[in-house]
Amino acid sequence: MKKLINGADSVVSDALTGLAAAHPELRVDVAKRIVTRAGGPRRGKVGLVSGGGSGHEPLHAGFVGHGMLDAACPGEIFTSPVPDQLIEATNAVNGGAGVLHIVKNYTGDVLNFEMAAELCAEDGVEVATVLVNDDVAVQDSLFTAGRRGTGATLFVEKIAGALAEGGAPLDEVASVGNEVNARSRSFGVALSACTTPTAGKPTFELGEGEIELGIGIHGEPGRVRAPMAPAREIVRVAMDAIHEDLPLSGDTLVLVNGMGGTPLIELYVVFAEVAAYLGERGARISRSLVGDYVTSLDMQGFSVTVCRLSEELTRLWDAPVQTPALRWGR
Amino acid sequence: MKKLINGADSVVSDALTGLAAAHPELRVDVAKRIVTRAGGPRRGKVGLVSGGGSGHEPLHAGFVGHGMLDAACPGEIFTSPVPDQLIEATNAVNGGAGVLHIVKNYTGDVLNFEMAAELCAEDGVEVATVLVNDDVAVQDSLFTAGRRGTGATLFVEKIAGALAEGGAPLDEVASVGNEVNARSRSFGVALSACTTPTAGKPTFELGEGEIELGIGIHGEPGRVRAPMAPAREIVRVAMDAIHEDLPLSGDTLVLVNGMGGTPLIELYVVFAEVAAYLGERGARISRSLVGDYVTSLDMQGFSVTVCRLSEELTRLWDAPVQTPALRWGR
Repeated sequence: MKKLINGADSVVSDALTGLAAAHPELRVDVAKRIVTRAGGPRRGKVGLVSGGGSGHEPLHAGFVGHGMLDAACPGEIFTSPVPDQLIEATNAVNGGAGVLHIVKNYTGDVLNFEMAAELCAEDGVEVATVLVNDDVAVQDSLFTAGRRGTGATLFVEKIAGALAEGGAPLDEVASVGNEVNARSRSFGVALSACTTPTAGKPTFELGEGEIELGIGIHGEPGRVRAPMAPAREIVRVAMDAIHEDLPLSGDTLVLVNGMGGTPLIELYVVFAEVAAYLGERGARISRSLVGDYVTSLDMQGFSVTVCRLSEELTRLWDAPVQTPALRWGR
Repeated sequence: MKKLINGADSVVSDALTGLAAAHPELRVDVAKRIVTRAGGPRRGKVGLVSGGGSGHEPLHAGFVGHGMLDAACPGEIFTSPVPDQLIEATNAVNGGAGVLHIVKNYTGDVLNFEMAAELCAEDGVEVATVLVNDDVAVQDSLFTAGRRGTGATLFVEKIAGALAEGGAPLDEVASVGNEVNARSRSFGVALSACTTPTAGKPTFELGEGEIELGIGIHGEPGRVRAPMAPAREIVRVAMDAIHEDLPLSGDTLVLVNGMGGTPLIELYVVFAEVAAYLGERGARISRSLVGDYVTSLDMQGFSVTVCRLSEELTRLWDAPVQTPALRWGR
């Protein structure tokens, strides 16, 4: 294993130290592992908190800022943040209008966010939760009851964040988050396994000419192993799985996401195939992202996420956002 | 070799097809391999053209747009664009105020840009050139006489682009480009080799516990092979090389760039060490970028580029930019 780290134990802290140095517009508490906007909570605005295991960068800390999250809580690599972190973050961003928790559907995350929400509620903070479960690859998996949450998480964070920035109340912000999740589907493919710093070796074995279809973002098993194939065929498998679950038509928001070890040139090749697939079915790519957004350390591969847009969701997607990983419109 | 492609011959075309689908604000001529802004040239504005081998994405096509480039010409993987491409792009962006060529210092690129500039000049188009040669690792190398051009290229493109957008004449736009290059230094480190689609195997061999210090963006040899070490020590070697060549003080613009196969969490670990190094020397990180900007296909590793800022260069860096890979301020 060769990694640009100082030691397996300090990766998360060292990376947060770097995040703080690069982004003075964020307040990064390295010891407590809480990233918030430097300005503090805005009175009367719903606060948005997300979090999850590290190793999926820029998720979630890269999405803290105007128009998106108010706080992110990174856990250890591939490990949920703890309730204390989540409680402190929730209190830190509470501007009196309640706080929305955005949670990817992994058992540890769900339990810890639930516990934090209960304890915050006992202290009089109103908390609502959006559970993201967009990954159509498998029903139940390692770490998950039901579907896993992946790329749609950032759609939820962006769109709910825009509504919250505009002053909407907690129930509406939660409602639009749930709507985005319901309209979104994802599917991931691995060309290689990822290597965690503590394990020091790949989390699973893939043969020289083999890929894993339906992979999870921690390397959890997907649907099936298959021989390596042209991008066009691989994309077809992924898009068929999505289209069977949620027929694709009309305006869509498409994310072609790199898993961390995939060059951008390959992601654009994949995007071309996704565009062709949607075009054949009369669906239109109205908005899109291509790049590393929800990663799995150094894994080679990609995921594709499609959200069926409405006019209102498009408007909220287009609203100004100022975060390390997404910036536009201001 | 496992890559998300349809075939080694179609990688560049397929990726450009994807770029076109993702970015309707660009005009992508897939056959001729020319990427321009959809709006066409602006009368009286200096046009900026860059280009180079593919495999370094988002460089250069990802930097076409308001406030940065007017056109990019991608060559085959790790191969210079041809003069015809460059001539056509130069004519396409000529708004009557002349055109600036931004060229990374590799022999093929230099020759082809020179030939294009001469032929354009014969046709009455005023062309100036900025040659980027910021890489302090080696003097002369495979493909290069003198120093190689790497990360500073995007600084030149951004800052010269901002000046051109504001209506400055060609000599001033070229002059600021040369100034940015003169104030910038880079150094790269490889943890692994890259694999080109046509070769199908790594361009060189690195041992299990070995890294290459001073690597070029095509895998050209660097200064020395060394045993794998903690990020802190690797960064010190890179920064010492830069600091010895251009003493670092005052306000700096810092790019910590991923080579294509390096996860963002590691780049932030590297950034923390760069920040510590500069802090010890009394230099200040005034602006920064962390991510994949000048890549080498799937290579694992990073490069660091430092530019000593002036007030004017900072103002131009901060000016609005709207491209696929850099967006802010509008």
